[in-house]
Amino acid sequence: MAGNGEVVSNKQVVLKNFVEGFPKETDMEVKTSSISLKVEEGSNAVVVKNLYLSCDPYMRNRMTFSENPEFASYIKGSPIQGYGVGKVVNSGHPEFKKGDLVWGTTGWEEYSLIKNPQVLFKIHHTDVPLSYYTGILGMPGITAWAGFYEICTPKKGEYVYISAASGAVGQLVGQFAKLMGCYVVGSAGSKEKVELLKNKFGFDDAFNYKEEKDLNAALKRCFPEGIDIYFENVGGKMLDAVLLNMRVRGRIAVCGMISQYNLTRPEGVYNLMNVVYKRIRIEGFAVFDFFHQYSKFSETVLPSIREGKVVYVEDVAEGLENAPGALVGLFSGRNVGKQVVVVAKE
Amino acid sequence: MAGNGEVVSNKQVVLKNFVEGFPKETDMEVKTSSISLKVEEGSNAVVVKNLYLSCDPYMRNRMTFSENPEFASYIKGSPIQGYGVGKVVNSGHPEFKKGDLVWGTTGWEEYSLIKNPQVLFKIHHTDVPLSYYTGILGMPGITAWAGFYEICTPKKGEYVYISAASGAVGQLVGQFAKLMGCYVVGSAGSKEKVELLKNKFGFDDAFNYKEEKDLNAALKRCFPEGIDIYFENVGGKMLDAVLLNMRVRGRIAVCGMISQYNLTRPEGVYNLMNVVYKRIRIEGFAVFDFFHQYSKFSETVLPSIREGKVVYVEDVAEGLENAPGALVGLFSGRNVGKQVVVVAKE
Repeated sequence: MAGNGEVVSNKQVVLKNFVEGFPKETDMEVKTSSISLKVEEGSNAVVVKNLYLSCDPYMRNRMTFSENPEFASYIKGSPIQGYGVGKVVNSGHPEFKKGDLVWGTTGWEEYSLIKNPQVLFKIHHTDVPLSYYTGILGMPGITAWAGFYEICTPKKGEYVYISAASGAVGQLVGQFAKLMGCYVVGSAGSKEKVELLKNKFGFDDAFNYKEEKDLNAALKRCFPEGIDIYFENVGGKMLDAVLLNMRVRGRIAVCGMISQYNLTRPEGVYNLMNVVYKRIRIEGFAVFDFFHQYSKFSETVLPSIREGKVVYVEDVAEGLENAPGALVGLFSGRNVGKQVVVVAKE
Repeated sequence: MAGNGEVVSNKQVVLKNFVEGFPKETDMEVKTSSISLKVEEGSNAVVVKNLYLSCDPYMRNRMTFSENPEFASYIKGSPIQGYGVGKVVNSGHPEFKKGDLVWGTTGWEEYSLIKNPQVLFKIHHTDVPLSYYTGILGMPGITAWAGFYEICTPKKGEYVYISAASGAVGQLVGQFAKLMGCYVVGSAGSKEKVELLKNKFGFDDAFNYKEEKDLNAALKRCFPEGIDIYFENVGGKMLDAVLLNMRVRGRIAVCGMISQYNLTRPEGVYNLMNVVYKRIRIEGFAVFDFFHQYSKFSETVLPSIREGKVVYVEDVAEGLENAPGALVGLFSGRNVGKQVVVVAKE
């Protein structure tokens, strides 16, 4: 590892163009810059060596120019930002020291200068794979946990449906729901993913939405009694079909709507009158509202991982060069499980 | 009033045809039948003389053939059912006696045999107009009260928007919101109604949605800071425009979607991604889930009525003959305020 003050070369993935429609690898560019590993005297900043980077659907929204301050656009010509795992190389912040492992928002580059290190979480447990802090023990993990337990308000025996169910968040929601004693069905976009849902994650049933001509019929087949809880990752036509199949006082936790992010005009949703007829609650949530519960979350989930009660499937791309392709692949469903990029192993 | 056991003629409004599209007066028929005012020995039933009948938008849904058990269709050839105020003529039920005033579900006819009188509420206070028990002190009142306080979870100073704001429910929600110290804007479909909102009900602002080419622009003009609470009575395009103007952690209480009830295919709603971006909660509710709180509700609202802190505007149609027109008029916005039908004054 580089010493104090050393200027080193820094490979980066930068945004070349704001994206319209489906993102392409060529919207990003891999280039080499340089960075000083020194932290300026009196600064609170830290310099982090990035080890694992997380590819998450919400990043698509930041690739478009937007005036929404909650989802600030990326800056053209600057590195993509996202969640990642890194090792502190130098620190001006009293709570971080050289060698600390951290996860949180970082840049898509080999080294990042992080000026507000208070957004980083320290990693205290390394008996599990470090990459898990981009997934089950990171942002997607607490998303699944808060979204399921806080927003879905689940009860034992309820009927739970999860779309994009083999993804970073969906696979966990399904396992949490099974642990609670719910009946769990997931949908995904390939035979391989459907097998994973049924055989690896223990879902009661699963279907390939790409092979269903009629999503309403597919849901009626899987849920003859209707759906109590829908964990929404997809939006559009899927949401419309779900609304027809919700039970009275059903809950829809809206985690994302990946099917809509690349459309110039989103699809219409026509069945919202069911919200009145069935007294449905539809609730959007954002993981950062739950970050203050991270310790409680990780103390609950770590033992489940160690005991094998919860498993996690990752799809790992090697090297920053392959990061643009990995990110773009999310939107065609190329990834099987949580998409991670390895920048360096240590 | 007729005595025990007497058979009397009974004018009725019956459903002639299941409705598609906008209901027409000719979908109903006023006919004269006869009824025994006697209650069979050993029966729990009561016979009620109907005084005031309530015209409510949800009734449109019962005029269509539906398999939804929560909104059972009316029976062709039988009287329309709805909320009303009546006087007990005879009772086989220990909790009701001749002369009691009641409100609850009854038939659109002069006299109704009510076999499950436990659905009726006794009227204890007659220093307010009896017709109020079809409105501010009846189903619309508890709808506004529960919808606003329980579903909207309002806070002082929040920005509240109400559609169909001069209607049976909307006018109350606006007044409740003002009493709480919210900033309140309503929309309605005529100049007269807009004046009512501003001058009679004390809304901070109001607009005629029929005169706005761009609902999004109208809402931006009225809510430059955005909307915290939307009390949804309308659906469709209005909901779509509201979604663009909601603030972070906004709440939408879905009371009804009157703009959609008469469409063969409901309008699409395109802006649901805001549910994620702004962490919005959209929640449907049904008044009957709150009927057990009726005493608490009426004890809160009665003093406000007596002290003039809350006012109520009714649109009163005279006689059962005019009931079909009054009901149909709801869907063209003909009524100004709560639509009531007087069957008899006592």
